[in-house]
Amino acid sequence: MEILDGKLVAQAVKEKLKKETEQRAKNGKKIPHLAAVLIGNNGASETYVASKVKSCSEIGFKSTLIRLSEDISESQLLNKLNELNEDFDVDGILVQLPLPKHISEEKIIETIFPSKDVDGFHPESVGRMVQGLPTFYPATPYGILLLLEHYKIETKGKHAVVIGRSNIVGRPISIMLSKNEYPGNCTVTVCHSHTPNLKEICLQADIIIAALGKPEFLKADMVKPGSVVVDVGITRIEDSTKKSGFTIKGDVDFQAVSPKCSYITPVPGGVGPMTIAALMMNTFKACLAKDLA
Amino acid sequence: MEILDGKLVAQAVKEKLKKETEQRAKNGKKIPHLAAVLIGNNGASETYVASKVKSCSEIGFKSTLIRLSEDISESQLLNKLNELNEDFDVDGILVQLPLPKHISEEKIIETIFPSKDVDGFHPESVGRMVQGLPTFYPATPYGILLLLEHYKIETKGKHAVVIGRSNIVGRPISIMLSKNEYPGNCTVTVCHSHTPNLKEICLQADIIIAALGKPEFLKADMVKPGSVVVDVGITRIEDSTKKSGFTIKGDVDFQAVSPKCSYITPVPGGVGPMTIAALMMNTFKACLAKDLA
Repeated sequence: MEILDGKLVAQAVKEKLKKETEQRAKNGKKIPHLAAVLIGNNGASETYVASKVKSCSEIGFKSTLIRLSEDISESQLLNKLNELNEDFDVDGILVQLPLPKHISEEKIIETIFPSKDVDGFHPESVGRMVQGLPTFYPATPYGILLLLEHYKIETKGKHAVVIGRSNIVGRPISIMLSKNEYPGNCTVTVCHSHTPNLKEICLQADIIIAALGKPEFLKADMVKPGSVVVDVGITRIEDSTKKSGFTIKGDVDFQAVSPKCSYITPVPGGVGPMTIAALMMNTFKACLAKDLA
Repeated sequence: MEILDGKLVAQAVKEKLKKETEQRAKNGKKIPHLAAVLIGNNGASETYVASKVKSCSEIGFKSTLIRLSEDISESQLLNKLNELNEDFDVDGILVQLPLPKHISEEKIIETIFPSKDVDGFHPESVGRMVQGLPTFYPATPYGILLLLEHYKIETKGKHAVVIGRSNIVGRPISIMLSKNEYPGNCTVTVCHSHTPNLKEICLQADIIIAALGKPEFLKADMVKPGSVVVDVGITRIEDSTKKSGFTIKGDVDFQAVSPKCSYITPVPGGVGPMTIAALMMNTFKACLAKDLA
């Protein structure tokens, strides 16, 4: 069993981007610039945005953190996003979700120019991904592909079972893994809460993507020996023994499942860091696209 | 075994739309208007466009057929589409594919306003479909859903196997059947040319959507007794005994497969007429959306 080490691969991706960014600077080219919008002060959101900003500075990207108060109106936020859309120096825009209830997530996402939509959440980005046109892949599934690619895991003709059909992970990764390119060309089965025979289907899988958000859901008796298991879950569980007061659990019972796998991602240190690496890749590509424009 | 009679159901859909359109006329409301653009004189395209225009007239929709010569330039075509975009009276625009080689299909499709994209091919329409937002579903998979709905076929918790991953049928129907609504909530497996064990997977299916474009590909030994089989294939095979010089074959070996099925679509008379009915539904909805705007 080999660990799919997201920390290590994310670091490798970031170092590659760092070198390319230094080269751009030397050649007098534009440096990638990510604008992150954080509304209110949700603990998890603070952590995510902080590590995105930190990654930018490690790589040498510019970043702008825009903090807005919880009670900002929808139209004020839309104005802010339009400003960022029009700002030539900003390559990528991300609005950390979730949003306060009085703001429409749909409206916010659709306001960001698809050319700056480095989260890959705009319907146009999603549609282009489905159709195989150049676009930004959503960060988490893109991070999973980068991870499989780094470990040169064969995907062609393999049976991938995706548990979960969310817009941000399950649905897009199921589409990406069945595309006619590497990593892809899998036979893909999408399972969800209405799948009656999940265990039976998982036992057929060469690759399992667990993205349902139920801690330690995937058990050893659901996994075929030699399979590749990617754990997308990150649920915070109260834990008084930890300084933070919580511990992070994935969707896979790692202790029991890992001995059966050829490859498996740990939680934390698997998909999580790859999500940020993928976001950095998207930001770099958004900047690159301006060279060509 | 019961036939999923696309001719019959398409007729029922059209009659419903006809009544609603008459009602709209009585109430002084706008009548749906479809603009169809036909370039060159490909035989199959002529036939498809003619039946779309005929359906409009049967229902009482307005239709405009715009015939353009094979050698029209891309920019002339784009201008024409922009005119149609700006024409308030036009609710739906369709450009019959395929296009001459010197014209970019991508550019043409993306020029049509998503609000008039009754073919559901614009990336924004596709992305909104993936994300479960209101949009136009592409006509063929939408027609399949209407057919399953008409026969009240249970889909929740069923295993649907989709053979083929094309942008216009396989991919969208796989997404639609796994959505959290009726018809949907299937466990969905997407198979394609790189699936090594297709027969084994098909034998698990409660519902098979054959959309690969290979005449009589699906054989009796690939089908579980009692399954629902939907045949999307329409390949023209030379046939000197026919007046037209060809006969139409589906992707399913109907003679051998049909006795094993609970329901099956014939070819012709199955998915084909439903595609047009679905296009009419989309055109009606495009018009309806203007009432609300």
